[in-house]
Amino acid sequence: MEQLPTYDDVVRAHERIASHAHRTPVLTSRLTDAELGLSLFLKAENLQRMGAFKFRGAFNALSRFDAEQRRAGVIAYSSGNHAQAIALGAALLGIPATIVMPHDAPAAKLAATKGYGAEVVRYDRWSEDREEIARALAEKRGLTLIPPYDHPDVMAGQGTAAKELFEETGPLDALFVPLGGGGLLSGSLLAAGALAPSCAVYGVEPEAGDDGLRSLRAGRIVHIDTPETLADGAQTQHLGAYPFAVIRDRVTDIVTASDAQLVDGMRLLASRLKTVAEPTGCLGLAAARELAERYRGGRVGVIVSGGNVDMARFARLLSA
Amino acid sequence: MEQLPTYDDVVRAHERIASHAHRTPVLTSRLTDAELGLSLFLKAENLQRMGAFKFRGAFNALSRFDAEQRRAGVIAYSSGNHAQAIALGAALLGIPATIVMPHDAPAAKLAATKGYGAEVVRYDRWSEDREEIARALAEKRGLTLIPPYDHPDVMAGQGTAAKELFEETGPLDALFVPLGGGGLLSGSLLAAGALAPSCAVYGVEPEAGDDGLRSLRAGRIVHIDTPETLADGAQTQHLGAYPFAVIRDRVTDIVTASDAQLVDGMRLLASRLKTVAEPTGCLGLAAARELAERYRGGRVGVIVSGGNVDMARFARLLSA
Repeated sequence: MEQLPTYDDVVRAHERIASHAHRTPVLTSRLTDAELGLSLFLKAENLQRMGAFKFRGAFNALSRFDAEQRRAGVIAYSSGNHAQAIALGAALLGIPATIVMPHDAPAAKLAATKGYGAEVVRYDRWSEDREEIARALAEKRGLTLIPPYDHPDVMAGQGTAAKELFEETGPLDALFVPLGGGGLLSGSLLAAGALAPSCAVYGVEPEAGDDGLRSLRAGRIVHIDTPETLADGAQTQHLGAYPFAVIRDRVTDIVTASDAQLVDGMRLLASRLKTVAEPTGCLGLAAARELAERYRGGRVGVIVSGGNVDMARFARLLSA
Repeated sequence: MEQLPTYDDVVRAHERIASHAHRTPVLTSRLTDAELGLSLFLKAENLQRMGAFKFRGAFNALSRFDAEQRRAGVIAYSSGNHAQAIALGAALLGIPATIVMPHDAPAAKLAATKGYGAEVVRYDRWSEDREEIARALAEKRGLTLIPPYDHPDVMAGQGTAAKELFEETGPLDALFVPLGGGGLLSGSLLAAGALAPSCAVYGVEPEAGDDGLRSLRAGRIVHIDTPETLADGAQTQHLGAYPFAVIRDRVTDIVTASDAQLVDGMRLLASRLKTVAEPTGCLGLAAARELAERYRGGRVGVIVSGGNVDMARFARLLSA
């Protein structure tokens, strides 16, 4: 195992991505604050390039490739946003990209990935192991594999979102972060540890896939079957080893959100904040609303992790 | 008739509203730019307070009330956003507000108006004259009437949106502005005249309600029946006299957009920009796309005027 990333790695990642990633805005809603009895700061990573925070980690990892790696190319597997992030980052850096994506990935994500010029290899999410497919292809073609979360450079890159949030808001009492494989949460913990050591940091995962919570309680990484949840960006079967090493030691707690809470969050973000989030992107908001009483009168940060959702699906969920 | 407002009035309005209104962001989309062959700058007034540019003009007009006017209160009539703007502005300034609203106003707009503490008086949009109702109430109760667009202070306030846009983007080749009664367009023309004199400025109205275009061609204000269009914020029967005096002399042209083009615009804004606009808010974008060839390689501004749309309606339109 390589060394775990530190806050210094987040700072260096921020320097690397600064001229390519958006510094996304922090959104607020007076009406929502009044209803919840606290001040909410929403880091709008749905407005990040390619529509999700994943661009940060992907670009950071790609920009550390040496000449030989750049020439041979990159391979990645992903339920969607990491794929687009690698495809876009590789296109920007002139690196050939191969992406392993599930057959049932949202059409918008598939189209965007191909649109960035990547080669797409499909697999069946319910029966095949994407990691195995990607590793075999990587070996056969000499490609460098960048996993979606279990990689120090990816974690450091994802931590830049929380870094920007703390830099803009100052001290917070709590921060709620969507949790799939743990890249965003572990990176956020590194940023919070340096910039806001007294801030409680929560990972939020879908109710149907609470492997993170169970792993935290067990003290080891628990594996589950692919969970059925609206949060397609958090349908991971287990945390990454690197992220877990950070999360285990630093996270305040891991909580869950139901699909209904995610849809409520999407509706609130669209009607009040006029912003479009994907279901996974609403995990943090759902938990912040659920735990509002605990932070009454306080300042609460939320990372809205992404906004890539098919419009037909978005419309269907909003009208449900 | 009072004197027409000038750019100086826009500057003074900007000073008055600066600490209360949001300086809204200017959104861009690389993918959309590539498709259209130009650089598009979207002034996101859907992210303005109460969700529309109307807050600017309303707050500017209210902040010029004398002590007696403040005590007695304000009355306004509106198909929605102006009502909310007056209600919020009055609440912020401690002025009692009465709002005359149509029976079929969107539920979200009605609820928001009441939520700001205003008294709401309903009327039938298809058979009653809202101006008459408001004027009678104003006289009876000693209230000051602020019309939604036909007022120099309202026009000057609305002009601050284009002022901010030009300050942020620098010179533009064209600017597309939604057109209902003419408050936003006339204010934008004042800003463009001072800050971007070579910029072409277009008013964009719904195809079903092209009274503005007909007025421009006729050289006098043409009245029409309330048009049936998705753009409920531009269902005006005629331009205001003050706005028309500015528009007639300064506008480049007036063009129209169909309901289908407005829905296409909503879908583009939601899927690409992750931002929620109401149909009226998409008038400018629709025309900019339609006339893209004319400004190929150029820099084109669009005012996205508002984002107040019932979520059920939004979902229905997106899925159509």
